[in-house]
Amino acid sequence: MTYRYKITFAYDGTNFAGFQVQPKQRTVEQALTIAVNKIAKKPTPAIQVYGSGRTDAGVHALGQVAHFDLPFNIPNEAMRKALNSILPLDILVQEVEQVDESFHARFNAHHKTYRYRVSLGEFVDPFKRNYTGHCKYHLNLSDMQLAAQDLVGEHDFSSFVASGSGVKSNVRTIYQVRVQADEANHEIIFDFTGSGFLYNQVRIMTAFLLEVGSGQRKVSDVKRVIVAKNRDLARGTAPASGLYLVNVDYDA
Amino acid sequence: MTYRYKITFAYDGTNFAGFQVQPKQRTVEQALTIAVNKIAKKPTPAIQVYGSGRTDAGVHALGQVAHFDLPFNIPNEAMRKALNSILPLDILVQEVEQVDESFHARFNAHHKTYRYRVSLGEFVDPFKRNYTGHCKYHLNLSDMQLAAQDLVGEHDFSSFVASGSGVKSNVRTIYQVRVQADEANHEIIFDFTGSGFLYNQVRIMTAFLLEVGSGQRKVSDVKRVIVAKNRDLARGTAPASGLYLVNVDYDA
Repeated sequence: MTYRYKITFAYDGTNFAGFQVQPKQRTVEQALTIAVNKIAKKPTPAIQVYGSGRTDAGVHALGQVAHFDLPFNIPNEAMRKALNSILPLDILVQEVEQVDESFHARFNAHHKTYRYRVSLGEFVDPFKRNYTGHCKYHLNLSDMQLAAQDLVGEHDFSSFVASGSGVKSNVRTIYQVRVQADEANHEIIFDFTGSGFLYNQVRIMTAFLLEVGSGQRKVSDVKRVIVAKNRDLARGTAPASGLYLVNVDYDA
Repeated sequence: MTYRYKITFAYDGTNFAGFQVQPKQRTVEQALTIAVNKIAKKPTPAIQVYGSGRTDAGVHALGQVAHFDLPFNIPNEAMRKALNSILPLDILVQEVEQVDESFHARFNAHHKTYRYRVSLGEFVDPFKRNYTGHCKYHLNLSDMQLAAQDLVGEHDFSSFVASGSGVKSNVRTIYQVRVQADEANHEIIFDFTGSGFLYNQVRIMTAFLLEVGSGQRKVSDVKRVIVAKNRDLARGTAPASGLYLVNVDYDA
């Protein structure tokens, strides 16, 4: 008899070489795998942890999801406390839920929301350097909001993917893009909800929208560049520090 | 002819081994000294930077002050930009002011304000681990506020100083202590304003007030422990991560 646990967790990506296990690197998946195997009293990596997807080095999560199977039935709250007692302080498990074995953190994910935070001003606040991107130019909010709407829908996002992604199709659906000013914190917040995102897609789209906001591009460039399916037309990539995986949704 | 510059600056103390220069360590004073000497085109440390005082490893500053002398007259704004272009991203110069040579960042400091942030809840938020202390116990705010008032005034703070401070007198004046709940952020904020603080004094006083808040000590213990002048009676020291030098005031 095995029991499947779905966990929802946050992490500060600053000191991780991304989510996925890599030799000789400190990763989120590695830290989770060590913790789960410790609880199971197994040699790592006897029990595997399956995340909803990767995040890059320096990228944060507010609500990442993973699952794993254990031969024990541990109550959700006890499991949450056990994991948090073992995990390093830059990962926090917020919720544990026993799910049936049809649940898969990656294959069942229906949509994801990513947030990108851009801090404004001439120089970046030292306390935000690892937690935001930065733009020193004046940004036209309504231009960015208009341009963002042209990203919504089912598109081939070949112009907005980093090389080496290795996926077969670059077609994805974006359900919603919100661009808001957080006046109190001198930030612009971009929220992207979609069926899934290509390698670096959110950071490339954010850089593109910032170029629209600063007047380096026109609002109409989004449509044109999507149609062109040519990565050379969307050159920038916003830094990892501003990106957050906000949540993963499993309901259609 | 030399010109004296007063600078006000913030830093994220997480990756610094404190303010003061130390061999083979990354410190704030070292980073400032390198930047100033670069601007002066001198070999470091030809021109010295004088801070208002030290902060320990991991302690932050929102408004630390220092001064230095240069043989050039550089406008304040140009100096601020030059420094920020050279300094690492975890230090930000907020203000530059040319002052006359009677100004000394350390000797003329009249009072300082330190803030200590404590995050509440069972586990610490991963994004706050380097920026707050943490307390998982329920805290009685009004007990802490009452106890804090007994710290105000001129006292011999020998019970609240870490060993090895090496100063002759432990008498200091505390002008104000404020203890507030920041409900939105699930934090308790302690603000201490005083003529100057002994080694680890703010962190020891904070740990003491937290023990009052959690019921491990009585409100009346503050008076008793001050009078005793015995460090063994105030054992705890709150971690460096929650401490901020808020500002240094030069007016009486």
